[in-house]
Amino acid sequence: MEKKVFHALLSLDEALKLFNSSIEEKISPLESETVKVENSLSRVTAEPVFAKVSSPYFHSAAMDGYAVRSFDTFSASESNPVELKLGSQAIWIETGDPLPEDFDAVIPIEEVTQKDDTIEIYRSYPPYHDVRCVGEDIVATEMIIPENHLISPVEVGAMLASGISEVKVRKKPVIGIIPTGSELVSIYEAQEKGLTPPQLLEYNSQVLKGLLLKDGALPKIYPIAKDEENTVKKALLSALEECDAVFINAGSGYGKEDFTYKVLSSLGEVILNGVAMKPGKPFIAAFVKNTPVLGIPGYPVSTFFSYLIFGRRLVERFLGIKLYEGEEVKGILSRQLSSKIGVDEFVRVKVGKVGDKYIVSPAGRGAGLLMSLVRADGYIRLEKSCEGLSAGQEVKVHLFRTRKELENTVVCIGSHDNTLDVLYNFLRKRHPEVSLSSSHVGSMGGIIAIKKGEAHIAGTHLLDEATGEYNIPFIKKLIPEKSVVLVNLVYRVQGLIVKRGNPKNIKGIEDLTREDVTFVNRQGGSGTRLLLDKCLRERGIDPSKIKGYEVEEYTHMGVAQAVASGRADVGLGIYAAAKALDLEFIPLAEERYDLLIPKEFLNLPTIQALLDVIRSDEEFKEAVRSLGGYDTRDMGKVIYES
Amino acid sequence: MEKKVFHALLSLDEALKLFNSSIEEKISPLESETVKVENSLSRVTAEPVFAKVSSPYFHSAAMDGYAVRSFDTFSASESNPVELKLGSQAIWIETGDPLPEDFDAVIPIEEVTQKDDTIEIYRSYPPYHDVRCVGEDIVATEMIIPENHLISPVEVGAMLASGISEVKVRKKPVIGIIPTGSELVSIYEAQEKGLTPPQLLEYNSQVLKGLLLKDGALPKIYPIAKDEENTVKKALLSALEECDAVFINAGSGYGKEDFTYKVLSSLGEVILNGVAMKPGKPFIAAFVKNTPVLGIPGYPVSTFFSYLIFGRRLVERFLGIKLYEGEEVKGILSRQLSSKIGVDEFVRVKVGKVGDKYIVSPAGRGAGLLMSLVRADGYIRLEKSCEGLSAGQEVKVHLFRTRKELENTVVCIGSHDNTLDVLYNFLRKRHPEVSLSSSHVGSMGGIIAIKKGEAHIAGTHLLDEATGEYNIPFIKKLIPEKSVVLVNLVYRVQGLIVKRGNPKNIKGIEDLTREDVTFVNRQGGSGTRLLLDKCLRERGIDPSKIKGYEVEEYTHMGVAQAVASGRADVGLGIYAAAKALDLEFIPLAEERYDLLIPKEFLNLPTIQALLDVIRSDEEFKEAVRSLGGYDTRDMGKVIYES
Repeated sequence: MEKKVFHALLSLDEALKLFNSSIEEKISPLESETVKVENSLSRVTAEPVFAKVSSPYFHSAAMDGYAVRSFDTFSASESNPVELKLGSQAIWIETGDPLPEDFDAVIPIEEVTQKDDTIEIYRSYPPYHDVRCVGEDIVATEMIIPENHLISPVEVGAMLASGISEVKVRKKPVIGIIPTGSELVSIYEAQEKGLTPPQLLEYNSQVLKGLLLKDGALPKIYPIAKDEENTVKKALLSALEECDAVFINAGSGYGKEDFTYKVLSSLGEVILNGVAMKPGKPFIAAFVKNTPVLGIPGYPVSTFFSYLIFGRRLVERFLGIKLYEGEEVKGILSRQLSSKIGVDEFVRVKVGKVGDKYIVSPAGRGAGLLMSLVRADGYIRLEKSCEGLSAGQEVKVHLFRTRKELENTVVCIGSHDNTLDVLYNFLRKRHPEVSLSSSHVGSMGGIIAIKKGEAHIAGTHLLDEATGEYNIPFIKKLIPEKSVVLVNLVYRVQGLIVKRGNPKNIKGIEDLTREDVTFVNRQGGSGTRLLLDKCLRERGIDPSKIKGYEVEEYTHMGVAQAVASGRADVGLGIYAAAKALDLEFIPLAEERYDLLIPKEFLNLPTIQALLDVIRSDEEFKEAVRSLGGYDTRDMGKVIYES
Repeated sequence: MEKKVFHALLSLDEALKLFNSSIEEKISPLESETVKVENSLSRVTAEPVFAKVSSPYFHSAAMDGYAVRSFDTFSASESNPVELKLGSQAIWIETGDPLPEDFDAVIPIEEVTQKDDTIEIYRSYPPYHDVRCVGEDIVATEMIIPENHLISPVEVGAMLASGISEVKVRKKPVIGIIPTGSELVSIYEAQEKGLTPPQLLEYNSQVLKGLLLKDGALPKIYPIAKDEENTVKKALLSALEECDAVFINAGSGYGKEDFTYKVLSSLGEVILNGVAMKPGKPFIAAFVKNTPVLGIPGYPVSTFFSYLIFGRRLVERFLGIKLYEGEEVKGILSRQLSSKIGVDEFVRVKVGKVGDKYIVSPAGRGAGLLMSLVRADGYIRLEKSCEGLSAGQEVKVHLFRTRKELENTVVCIGSHDNTLDVLYNFLRKRHPEVSLSSSHVGSMGGIIAIKKGEAHIAGTHLLDEATGEYNIPFIKKLIPEKSVVLVNLVYRVQGLIVKRGNPKNIKGIEDLTREDVTFVNRQGGSGTRLLLDKCLRERGIDPSKIKGYEVEEYTHMGVAQAVASGRADVGLGIYAAAKALDLEFIPLAEERYDLLIPKEFLNLPTIQALLDVIRSDEEFKEAVRSLGGYDTRDMGKVIYES
């Protein structure tokens, strides 16, 4: 089995060029079907639509008043009024009424003096004064919308208004999705029979289905196929009979259980086998007769980008449209980003609008990290010639969200606390337009982010050993130049997190150096790390004696997870994290967790909304306390300002 | 019946404030329903979603290789390799396989030397090297998405990956739509029985339905109700039993056939009766018990903006989300815009990106002009304090399209010709990503737009009397400073357009001065107007002798429509317009219609696409010729360049 390496593969640009020219050559926009105009919303026109009747289709009064013949009014003036005879020269008419035959103007009621059987008028009126003329809105035969056009609600209205009841639209492309993998099970099967290694939950097919539905295609999911050449082949052959294109999800790599390439090269012509891109390297594109079949890699982030970069092009071609690719913004990179020459990489990023700048922070890069895609605000493309980017450099971000959403997002960088999730949730509940995006880089990192103008708020719990005071000494030292407010969020208990039943019988910090105990640490700069190091110094313990001291997690949940999974026996963290994963907790100290907010941001509606929740939402306080290990006695109180 | 005037009404801001606080007080987000996660796309969460299982849920190999115990490797180095016994100390493992009990690291196959029953290794490996750890992607109990969140395809995947098969989402709000109006008929009834004045086609309900569907609501259209108090009341009462909110479309004004206010004030509490906004002044908001009922005015553009400004707020409240309002851009106003103090006006605009500026041109302002909404790219809001805007001023545009679409749109300003519709259509057909936006201001206006940098191309057919040459003398005189290319589009025949059968027996220009003949003119600056004026001068005819000379239309179709509807007996225009409306045509002259393109735009992909169609698309040429009166002999040929 030859291992494909990047430099042997087509570059992304070359691959896209080949892919696009192949689909342009081999497939055409789908044939049309006729639908009622009232059911044509979000469909694509298969031919231009021309108005059948004009709108309005008769001359009508634009005001309540009198229909007249304009030439009867030509000699009228203030000094020489003209009288028009009711019935023969002036006829009462209401807005929308058809103009009587031979009449050509309307005089609004408030401009005439009504007499017994005449009206008196004081000026002349040109032809078609206050008349809504035939074709004023739509002229019969004019083009309402062209071919290859996505139909909007007002266009549905315009077609109906111009006498059209049916419209030819493109059929929706039927895209088959075949999940392959002997270890895959559906969530329903897992719920019924339990889930045991090496079984994996199958969910990519539903992601692809959702993406296809949003793009206007008709996805069709086939049963999970085992990793056997004949099974995959049979599944593909039956899908080919019903679909305009087929996606085989996974099995596109070069392992001994990967059969996509083998099956496709035996049935048709493979045009791409691997692309120098990350994620998504083992991507395959083939045609079986003229039906396109894509081999889509199985890591969820690879699946997503393979669809975004290649899959959508098929839907566009079938429908004859260009699909919407989302907004773009230019932003400033908050930290450096390494890059591998020769590979185009799509890097997920979080984006926050702080002041008038978009701050772009790279997120997890692993192809298996679906949650980092859920939490990402967009992505940047590192070109294959890129040797890496430095902090402060401008980058173009392709957004998953809208600029508006980013503008309404509070950017929180700093220490991690579980109450931030609860806060996010209550914020959405009380102020649906506001979001909270939190990145966990530790308390120190949060203060630095505030200093650099990269965050609206920072969560921090830094204990100053000299004074025993939390946060304030650090703020005074690190950002003396900024006017800030420090608002308390919670007091919380930190302690040792150990397995249920405490099998290693850990009682305190002293046990961390034991030969049979593996520790999991928090990253440098985090308040929890500072707390640990202080405890160690107080007790004269050498950190190098602790097994696992060098293994760093970025969140309390990460520490708890390491203990729960057996990667470590013990870690330092908050009670809520231990409780969430049903672990045991040995309390060490209560600490103060505050939010640091520059005064310049205090009046932002988003920050006001956040403070509103913190200060006056009893239900929120209750939800925080129910996590366990939290005290909300000073929640929302201003601790310090500068 | 008192006529409501703007100054007696609440301002838009006051009305919105009252409206929003009322709905916040009287209605709550809808209760939830449980759906399968696989059917939850684009639904809104009714509670936060927490992971049930971690992903991955077991430690597995991240590479093909050997599972080992890390402490067995600690002494290994290049100079002192270590041998591990297969079976007890090293076990073959493939990517994704679960790590065997008691093993804690994986060594990739390419880093070992395989011997008979051992492997030799050359470095130490830390715990969890090349292992995909439990919870690396998702940690059980962590929040996947918060409450009030619109579910995306990747979030469907993340929920399934974390063991969740069902999710609580908000019910979709059922919004009743009652079309009212004795003169309204459905398109199906019109097709069956014919359409005769004062009947009007009903289509607003379908526009509202489309808008509601796109926003995630469930519209329910009721039968058309006649303009009778009891009929409207009965229809409303039955809708109130089935709906979360009801829209009564039309009848919200103050005419004697308008019953919405009367019905609503008898059944419940009217909170808004008219708003100082344009379009949409006669808007009504009421609560019947706690169900909101909106009286939505009947002009189509009023219907649209009433929904956009008020109706959507209800959907947002029911769903607990903030709906997407589209992108915004800042642009430069291409001409002055009058404004009425005391009224907030929503002005539809066309927007083109020319060079690096967005050029904003106001479109038709009438509330009845649905097509100007179809063609609009967005709208601007003229605040009630605004006294008018001047050309060149910066304005904020709320876009109906995306910036990308605008960037891919060729802005064509100038003379009108029917081939531009055909060109637009072929452009979409051949290059789905490219659009054409054409504004008709006459040939002279087009050249001026090019001079001012407001258009990419201008259609022009200006005859210079002195030289008999088309366009070039005007270009030399008006924009000597610009490098341009003049490309021929078509030659076309201009002539007199008269009713079928020519009832007024018009034979030529001389007949225009006849007492019984009404003419319809084209606007000043148009090539057609110049042609007319030249013909008149040659014949020594005094324009003031022509009835209707002062009535100006902006397009050939407008002229043809005026003749077809009887507003005029004759106009000057092109054969295609006469043919489209089945009118007679008396040829006068062949003229050359060219496209003027600044050289700076020639290399834009959009202009390249357009030239590509003009120069090499035989099907396009044939489509133009089939309009009648066109000669394509020089289509695409460069006539002049500077």
